Amino acid sequence: MAGWVHAKRDLGGKKFLLLRDRDGIVQVVISKDQRELCELFYELTLESAVSVVGKVRADARAPGGFEVVPTRIVVLNLARAPLPLDVSGKVPADVDTRFRERVLDLRREETKAMFKVLSVALRAMREELYSAGFVEVFTPKIVATATEGGATLFPVAYFGREAYLAQSPQLYKELLAGAFERVFEIAPAWRAEESDTPYHLAEFISVDVEMAFANYEDAMRILERVVARAAREVREVAPRELRVLGYEPPEIRLPVRRITYADAARVLAESGERVDPGEDLSTPHLRRLSELVGEEVYFIVDWPDKTRPFYTMPKDDGVFSESFDFVWGHLEIASGSTRVHRKDLLVKRLKERGLNPENFEFFLKWFDYGMPPHAGWGMGLARLGLMLTGAKNVRELVAFPRDKKRLVP
Amino acid sequence: MAGWVHAKRDLGGKKFLLLRDRDGIVQVVISKDQRELCELFYELTLESAVSVVGKVRADARAPGGFEVVPTRIVVLNLARAPLPLDVSGKVPADVDTRFRERVLDLRREETKAMFKVLSVALRAMREELYSAGFVEVFTPKIVATATEGGATLFPVAYFGREAYLAQSPQLYKELLAGAFERVFEIAPAWRAEESDTPYHLAEFISVDVEMAFANYEDAMRILERVVARAAREVREVAPRELRVLGYEPPEIRLPVRRITYADAARVLAESGERVDPGEDLSTPHLRRLSELVGEEVYFIVDWPDKTRPFYTMPKDDGVFSESFDFVWGHLEIASGSTRVHRKDLLVKRLKERGLNPENFEFFLKWFDYGMPPHAGWGMGLARLGLMLTGAKNVRELVAFPRDKKRLVP
Repeated sequence: MAGWVHAKRDLGGKKFLLLRDRDGIVQVVISKDQRELCELFYELTLESAVSVVGKVRADARAPGGFEVVPTRIVVLNLARAPLPLDVSGKVPADVDTRFRERVLDLRREETKAMFKVLSVALRAMREELYSAGFVEVFTPKIVATATEGGATLFPVAYFGREAYLAQSPQLYKELLAGAFERVFEIAPAWRAEESDTPYHLAEFISVDVEMAFANYEDAMRILERVVARAAREVREVAPRELRVLGYEPPEIRLPVRRITYADAARVLAESGERVDPGEDLSTPHLRRLSELVGEEVYFIVDWPDKTRPFYTMPKDDGVFSESFDFVWGHLEIASGSTRVHRKDLLVKRLKERGLNPENFEFFLKWFDYGMPPHAGWGMGLARLGLMLTGAKNVRELVAFPRDKKRLVP
Repeated sequence: MAGWVHAKRDLGGKKFLLLRDRDGIVQVVISKDQRELCELFYELTLESAVSVVGKVRADARAPGGFEVVPTRIVVLNLARAPLPLDVSGKVPADVDTRFRERVLDLRREETKAMFKVLSVALRAMREELYSAGFVEVFTPKIVATATEGGATLFPVAYFGREAYLAQSPQLYKELLAGAFERVFEIAPAWRAEESDTPYHLAEFISVDVEMAFANYEDAMRILERVVARAAREVREVAPRELRVLGYEPPEIRLPVRRITYADAARVLAESGERVDPGEDLSTPHLRRLSELVGEEVYFIVDWPDKTRPFYTMPKDDGVFSESFDFVWGHLEIASGSTRVHRKDLLVKRLKERGLNPENFEFFLKWFDYGMPPHAGWGMGLARLGLMLTGAKNVRELVAFPRDKKRLVP
């Protein structure tokens, strides 16, 4: 057995060493006639890495119903004392301390539980996509053009040329759907977000899906299945972690309710909220909407065209678009649409948004060669993680978050 | 049914339209009394996206044993003619044309087969790691410090600060193993490689594993199981794709043979090859070695310490190290080691290699807090892909490769 010294208890005649590994905590009992081990017990500091050889014996009073009587304890790496952060979680630490002392913070049961839940969710989502015929792909992260406008780009010096970190795999996943039909990617993306909110990161993991010969209804059907499976498998595979977190992810019944933007705006207006027609909905709007419609998760569909990016398919009415957000309570977790597959319309929409079609030639070119109708969505993994773990800030779900003030560790 | 016009054959009385989708090719037969469809047939260009409504009827002469008699054909997006690349693969194209016209190239059966094989391999590798208790993680890609020396870094402008794209997740995955014990990550990494070889890319997908309370023998046992499972599942799940590629991945019998560097050097010297003692082995060396030992895949273990990075654990002899390469024929596919877990030794090794320990403080700090003995490996996904598909250049296995001359598409 090997692990970390989680706690020590000296009852005189018996000394208890609580050893923590990835499966939990085991009690090691040293009796006072074990002289050398007793001396070692006093030297051992919390969070030291040790290995223990001994005999397991049943004891109803021990955590897990058994304890270990050691014959040998080897100190693998002695930890410095005092620790800058209490791993047992009994002494709470503020957020800045926690992220500065992140490796110790990641050893806490609660933090470990969050990352285990994310890992289970990732596996579940991929399995759902594989079973629906999707191929896993990777798109380039160093790109020559801004996908969604230029304000939030990180510049990269690329062999003497100007390049950027990809804000999303949007245009490349569309091109890949134009070859492989059904593709998904789970990979980092970057936005140079100036604002400090609980929901934004400079570097985030994006779950992306794109499908050919499909529209936004098809995309929503895949998305709700993927999210429902993630929530279900987390409940089934990680019950211990959910107990540690004191949280239950929502049960998602299919089909998830669809509410049009127009209906949402009407319901909000009727309840006395002010909604500017054709504008995006704010967080307070969404919070109120969730209460009014009595749904914990729901789609808002058919958003005003002007609130969506150039590659979104407008509806025939010229006002709305074939688009959706997947919302949990007041938080947008995923967003998608039918995409425009006609070159002339793409060029027109780029120009309307003040973007230069020449910069998008690498993308537009392929719409001359049989780009099929297609649709897809993108989801922030950490935002989904909020729904699955009950965490309040996306930084909790990123091992080493990157934002305006964090580049280290 | 929806897909792309793969080929047209006009036999006068009957017109054959070969429609391609992700499942294969279907024959659509238009008879001469279907006036409107005949006119459409003439207008249709290769690679146009179309949907077909009709009746399926058995026909032994058709590909797949059946054909479709259409009642309606809708043109979803008409392709421009002529095409810059022949998707049927009958007219071969040079490499530069293929990558310039990559979206059409990706529609070729052979290219699609390669990416399907990669997707199957990714799923298999992750399943093997999950079943061995590994947690999937993501490490930061924007970092403040070079991991492996500074020559091949891409600088990023990060909110007015100098930062770099991660060359590997090495240091962060070690820290995560110091919390979660068993972690893996499959994500992009970057090296500003000046050289143009079939085995190097500026942006590549790295499969990374790190495990606590483990040494390089443990790491090799996980690696060989992961690779063997990938090869086996590709054979089981993607036989159609392997037929298209005319290739069989090697059958990997466990345990894969371990050959020490010292033995390899001796065997090479005995066969008349010149090996500088303590130096890395060249591609011609590895090619010859594979022949001499009669193994298609093998480990070379216990490399000279001076050929390995600072975080590699040296052997007690001070000359060799607890390190390994996994080699297929003449190609290093993965590389790993026991890592140093003592801070004093890490500092000493950094200095020996001309690196400043102060720049590594974010990493070194944690070795004061019970960093356990640990080991791991990193593997280039595209290199593994060469072994699984028989492709000759890693660019073939990347949808939109990035190298010194390629930033677009």
